Amino acid sequence: MKKRVVPGHVLATEIPDVVIQRLPLYQRTLSLMSKEGVEVVSSFRLGELLGSTPAQIRKDLSYFGRFGKQGTGYDVSYLADRVKQILGLEKEWPMALVGVGRLGQAIARYPGFAAAGFRIVALFDTDPEKVGKRVEGIAIQSVEEMPQALKAEDIQIAILAVPADRAQPVTDLLLEGGVKAILNYAPISLLRVPPDIVVRSIDPVLVLQSMTFYLNSY
Amino acid sequence: MKKRVVPGHVLATEIPDVVIQRLPLYQRTLSLMSKEGVEVVSSFRLGELLGSTPAQIRKDLSYFGRFGKQGTGYDVSYLADRVKQILGLEKEWPMALVGVGRLGQAIARYPGFAAAGFRIVALFDTDPEKVGKRVEGIAIQSVEEMPQALKAEDIQIAILAVPADRAQPVTDLLLEGGVKAILNYAPISLLRVPPDIVVRSIDPVLVLQSMTFYLNSY
Repeated sequence: MKKRVVPGHVLATEIPDVVIQRLPLYQRTLSLMSKEGVEVVSSFRLGELLGSTPAQIRKDLSYFGRFGKQGTGYDVSYLADRVKQILGLEKEWPMALVGVGRLGQAIARYPGFAAAGFRIVALFDTDPEKVGKRVEGIAIQSVEEMPQALKAEDIQIAILAVPADRAQPVTDLLLEGGVKAILNYAPISLLRVPPDIVVRSIDPVLVLQSMTFYLNSY
Repeated sequence: MKKRVVPGHVLATEIPDVVIQRLPLYQRTLSLMSKEGVEVVSSFRLGELLGSTPAQIRKDLSYFGRFGKQGTGYDVSYLADRVKQILGLEKEWPMALVGVGRLGQAIARYPGFAAAGFRIVALFDTDPEKVGKRVEGIAIQSVEEMPQALKAEDIQIAILAVPADRAQPVTDLLLEGGVKAILNYAPISLLRVPPDIVVRSIDPVLVLQSMTFYLNSY
């Protein structure tokens, strides 16, 4: 469980990682409401929209200060901005993508990242055949060049889309290059990283396999 | 929180969904060990491999019966088979994919699903231009045909890869067709479904946004 103290908060509290993982959804929902002109929202309504309880909403948000107004609700645009700021989403984040195979190419072409301020600015692959080729206008570099290239562009976030057996050595090179956060698409259960590095995995097969448990009873 | 009683278990217990979500990783790790010839594993070693504590491992597995042997550890191949059976992974699951845009096509071509026994057997799209075209040998059908087609092939799992504003109406058609589990790639926070339907969302942008919280402090 990763925790970080929110700077500038009067009552500095340690925030559980599960709360942090829910915040982006709060932010997305609140921004949408703000765009639609909604000014105030209750914890009850937020709970409905997010599939949570009003108590959970109030508890989650209480970690970050006193947002709610007794009896009226939350100021939507203020809360949206504050959560955005807490999450560090006010700036654009450059990212590296390692592994430009079938999956990597789909990731490189996915428009959702840039739309949310996450821009893939560097591509790497272990295959010498691929080095020098371009995807979405970006030239693929060799993984040997990676630590140097990452440092030169001050890239702190990397997407890992390599086969399972390449995941750990590539991760070691990412860390050498100063990467602090890894979005892992490689089907590997555990990457060895120091405690100050954030790794989150995306594995649709694992997700499907946890759903069939419920189907099994039909 | 979805719960289901494991059939045939002496002490039928309600199993928290968080435990169910961890089981596929147990199964993958144990199957790999079994293939490598490992016969017995301790909760300590499993904890190391899965990034969990020995106590957590023992608690998770205790929901499904008495697997461990005091002082020796778990029988790897027996436990791997048992977890596979509990999750319903002994058979092949046919799936429908709705939305054959850029993301949908990448999903249709992803080899990991079929390798794990999840086979995409039907494709649907709302765009009349796309209907009749083939991806990976499968003809795209219109979403209007969906309820009928899903029932005809007894498809219980669907992957949703449509834009956010199409997600709910398409979900309603999936349910009409008898779908019980939805893997949602649409960037929508909450799909309205009855309580016996399982929905899990994959949204890499939300994952990235929860990681920048930690980077923000560097």
